[in-house]
Amino acid sequence: MSLKERIEQLAHNTKTASQSLAKLTEDRINAALEKLAELIDKNRHKIKEINEIDIKNAKKINLKASLIDRLLLNDKRIDGMIEAVETVIKLKSPVGKVIDGWRLENGLNIERVKVPIGCLGIIYESRPNVTVDASILCLKSSNGAILKGGKEAINSNRLLVGLIKEALSSHNINENVVNFIDETDRDAVLYMLKLDKYIDAIVPRGGEGLIRFVSENATMPVIKHDKGLCHGYVDESADLEKALSITYNAKVQRPGVCNALETLLVHKNIAQEFLVKFKELMDSAGVELRGCSETLKILPDIKLAEEDDWHTEYLDLILSIKIVDSIDEAIEHINRYGSHHSETIITENHTNAERFLDEVDAACVYVNASTRFTDGGVFGFGAEIGISTNKLHARGPVGLDELTTYKYKIRGNGQIRE
Amino acid sequence: MSLKERIEQLAHNTKTASQSLAKLTEDRINAALEKLAELIDKNRHKIKEINEIDIKNAKKINLKASLIDRLLLNDKRIDGMIEAVETVIKLKSPVGKVIDGWRLENGLNIERVKVPIGCLGIIYESRPNVTVDASILCLKSSNGAILKGGKEAINSNRLLVGLIKEALSSHNINENVVNFIDETDRDAVLYMLKLDKYIDAIVPRGGEGLIRFVSENATMPVIKHDKGLCHGYVDESADLEKALSITYNAKVQRPGVCNALETLLVHKNIAQEFLVKFKELMDSAGVELRGCSETLKILPDIKLAEEDDWHTEYLDLILSIKIVDSIDEAIEHINRYGSHHSETIITENHTNAERFLDEVDAACVYVNASTRFTDGGVFGFGAEIGISTNKLHARGPVGLDELTTYKYKIRGNGQIRE
Repeated sequence: MSLKERIEQLAHNTKTASQSLAKLTEDRINAALEKLAELIDKNRHKIKEINEIDIKNAKKINLKASLIDRLLLNDKRIDGMIEAVETVIKLKSPVGKVIDGWRLENGLNIERVKVPIGCLGIIYESRPNVTVDASILCLKSSNGAILKGGKEAINSNRLLVGLIKEALSSHNINENVVNFIDETDRDAVLYMLKLDKYIDAIVPRGGEGLIRFVSENATMPVIKHDKGLCHGYVDESADLEKALSITYNAKVQRPGVCNALETLLVHKNIAQEFLVKFKELMDSAGVELRGCSETLKILPDIKLAEEDDWHTEYLDLILSIKIVDSIDEAIEHINRYGSHHSETIITENHTNAERFLDEVDAACVYVNASTRFTDGGVFGFGAEIGISTNKLHARGPVGLDELTTYKYKIRGNGQIRE
Repeated sequence: MSLKERIEQLAHNTKTASQSLAKLTEDRINAALEKLAELIDKNRHKIKEINEIDIKNAKKINLKASLIDRLLLNDKRIDGMIEAVETVIKLKSPVGKVIDGWRLENGLNIERVKVPIGCLGIIYESRPNVTVDASILCLKSSNGAILKGGKEAINSNRLLVGLIKEALSSHNINENVVNFIDETDRDAVLYMLKLDKYIDAIVPRGGEGLIRFVSENATMPVIKHDKGLCHGYVDESADLEKALSITYNAKVQRPGVCNALETLLVHKNIAQEFLVKFKELMDSAGVELRGCSETLKILPDIKLAEEDDWHTEYLDLILSIKIVDSIDEAIEHINRYGSHHSETIITENHTNAERFLDEVDAACVYVNASTRFTDGGVFGFGAEIGISTNKLHARGPVGLDELTTYKYKIRGNGQIRE
């Protein structure tokens, strides 16, 4: 078989097998997950041994140290995988939940019920623990999963998928509900992205390059975790202590993540007082500031921000600052440059707070809180497969619930349409 | 400006204007809709006059009679448009509805709230009343709308859009919230489909060719109303009277629509008794039957169904029939050949009914009722923009609710992440 045929066969097998998941009880799926946790623990030594091969290969081709670190499976990370499985076991499956229902005058009973999406494709890079994370979330929501990991992690991924299949078989679940594209040819991804016949949605997890490639080539819906260009707006009426604490937290606590602050907007009437204190705080954390020309009048030592800065997700200890004349200008700037991920206003003014919540177009809009809270775990979803910057289907943290869709079940007694 | 630039400018204007809709009260939008109903009524004569130009042009180029009929705006259809506006005024806007909410331990209040999708693109053919239908549904759900109608209806559409803009202006609503692509060049659609920067979702309304073109070329999500290849399965334990009445209704009442029956599956143990009566009924309605080889043993006079028949949405008085050994075979056939639109089982067996509801993968799954009920009006949505065969976001009838998405509003008091 050609590469294309092999991928198509695998997708067909996964889709077909995934239809059998609808018939399984949650207990049965949980039992298989329990078995998986056991198997990961029991094969700890082997996992580290095989992972060592990937690490060695990565060093041979001089992969960046940060990527090699993501690749590594040590005891702590293996414990993390087991913990993830245990967490997902405890979550309630959304499948079968009746989310709406009514009776028509003719006696037809209509129910709107949560059902699995079907068969999901997950495309990811480096970190082999995604193999487990993605599989268990798909299984718990009764979805089939086709995994395509990075070629640098292929040995680790192959082993982990083997354990998942063993866990499934041990409870008589068709092991084709989780399949792994064991190919390193880049064309494998391209072929996968055209199989909308079998793959109902694609979840890419990785850098901007991967996301763009998937979005441009996929013929099925993409649940994408795109960039997080998050803003904070310090309103005229902000409580300065809250403003300092929130913006510091959002920028500094973990600068490399998507819900970290990238641009600060400050109302002109509070700019002088706020920015001088703010700069001290940022200096203490080693944050590089870049400001608009008005900001430079107050902080003459910092670099001038260029148009590009407003578009940039630094993911680093860098922050751009713009002084605005009004909340309108702040909202306009955010809706123009933001990535619709997480935005926050710091204000004591009720009307401005509510306007910001209503008018800013983003998945998560905050008043007087750090953008860093946008997270499936924090929100109480138990686990997440990513944070969606899509506008349709799933927005914000993507947990089990977002891995389902719905159907209408309609029960009648011979009704026909007149 | 080039065609491409003109389309981009229009999309930019609509998107920008659509952001102002979030600030308007429902009363204000209703007042504009009320004005629109008035304007349509007042301009009745002019509408018919202008429509006559489109009709004449269509006749000149020998457009099919059925298409010319769709193009026609007579008094009855103008009344229909006015009635549609009045219906939409009475519907409650879903925008602002809090669909979930909880408090985190740290005191953050999270609300999940319905918001407009933003700016929708509607691409449609022939029928100029879609100009009004689509615009009023978008307006009521606070979405901007970019309309691209068929070139054969361009004069009628231009006039109707003029009335919509007049109604908006009369209540100080930015008239750019509804824009019309007044171009006949086919490239206009292609350019439109690449503007995901401004257009949040595309709704194509038309034949298979249009849907395919839009799906293949759009870079934004497509809310598509694809084909309806609906099945009925007459189970071993079916009440034959119900089975005859439901299948007759589903096939014959209006064969040209997407929720009509195209393939009938019959359990082998009931086939002899059912099919003989069924054929009589179908003969009386002039329905051509095509059967599998087993069916031909019972009904030797009908045509043999080919593989192609199981894939075909006839939209006509033709029906394919297959005899199956079990409910499993019926479900498998439907999941393989169906278009995930509407499927029905006729049975008195509870377990089979529930299995069919659970295991058939379709937007609407029925027990003992006609598939013809899949309709936004019948479901009680008041109005619909189409019936989605998508699996994500909207499934089944697309009403006002399905023209919204959600955001998280999070209210804090200085919370930061530890």
